[in-house]
Amino acid sequence: MKEQMKIANVVIRRMPKYRRYLKDLQKKGVDKISSGEFSRLIGYTASQIRQDFNNFGGFGQQGYGYNVEALYNETNAILGLDKEYKMVVVGAGNLGQAIINYTNYYKSGFVVAGIFEKNPKLFGVKINDIEIKDYEFLADFVKENEIDIGIICTPKENAQDVADKLSGAGVKGIWNFAPLDIAVPESVTLENTHLSDSLHYLAYHINKAK
Amino acid sequence: MKEQMKIANVVIRRMPKYRRYLKDLQKKGVDKISSGEFSRLIGYTASQIRQDFNNFGGFGQQGYGYNVEALYNETNAILGLDKEYKMVVVGAGNLGQAIINYTNYYKSGFVVAGIFEKNPKLFGVKINDIEIKDYEFLADFVKENEIDIGIICTPKENAQDVADKLSGAGVKGIWNFAPLDIAVPESVTLENTHLSDSLHYLAYHINKAK
Repeated sequence: MKEQMKIANVVIRRMPKYRRYLKDLQKKGVDKISSGEFSRLIGYTASQIRQDFNNFGGFGQQGYGYNVEALYNETNAILGLDKEYKMVVVGAGNLGQAIINYTNYYKSGFVVAGIFEKNPKLFGVKINDIEIKDYEFLADFVKENEIDIGIICTPKENAQDVADKLSGAGVKGIWNFAPLDIAVPESVTLENTHLSDSLHYLAYHINKAK
Repeated sequence: MKEQMKIANVVIRRMPKYRRYLKDLQKKGVDKISSGEFSRLIGYTASQIRQDFNNFGGFGQQGYGYNVEALYNETNAILGLDKEYKMVVVGAGNLGQAIINYTNYYKSGFVVAGIFEKNPKLFGVKINDIEIKDYEFLADFVKENEIDIGIICTPKENAQDVADKLSGAGVKGIWNFAPLDIAVPESVTLENTHLSDSLHYLAYHINKAK
């Protein structure tokens, strides 16, 4: 893999989708694919696809196309999915529990190492064999266990405080489910999943069509 | 509200965020806000904000700014949040249960009217007082109850089949959580939430920074 320069986030955002399609192709026993065939499948133009992968060194061969298995492995490596990431989940309500179960099921290199709550009634309760701990110990736990990712599943009132604690303790990424635009230092990558925004987007289009 | 022309989806995507900020401003007792103040708060330029709301008729007044309560109500109406939407959830695993609990907690006009599963062991089990039903009866239920939105929380192998059944039975929107790019007719609005893509995006940035 070519040394990675600063690559636009829009390109990075497309990589997981490439990976999904390459995985499916592999499962179907497809060995190679041209950028044209890939384009018809995934819905990006062939030149877009070539350009995207050229950011990382190319991998295609004129007149042959892409080797599916090799490109899948490269995409995996580009995304850093050949490594393991340690995560904590803050907030063990319905959403927090679902995310813990989801990532557990998901089974790739994303490991929930700790769960934290403010509600004392939940201290000691286990989800997937992981004991829910007092929020007070979050920062120490993140430092001691070199946690990579903090997942915020708290009410929005607490989300910025959680983000500050996580960032201060050294996480490199925050996945925020609280319906709030939290601020994080530049060294921390922020991913927002605002579920209510998705419902509102659907509502707009449905209401307009009614 | 001015009659709605075809407005770009990027504008619609910003509306839920405007709404969140306007709600917070209202809670804080703020009566009015200029586009400049709003800009500093929300991170879009003042001209972007004016342009976005001009799509729907403006609502601002030169030299006064926006009335917060009025703009919140207009944004609500633009998004169709003054109506009620009936939903079904297909797939009652961890993620399905979380979405059901989430929307229940959310309490605005999004009502889960039915839950469907292929696993017979779950038939009759209740989540939030709603009985899980046999997937076989999905289409009839959607038609009879005039369901607006279908939420797909199944494994990806079943997602396209579910989408076809939902679309065929007349839903107007599909919220897809399966890690698959499903195809829907033009009359159906599709919203994808690919949770694994979010993890992969974080992994890329964390791995790069390591």
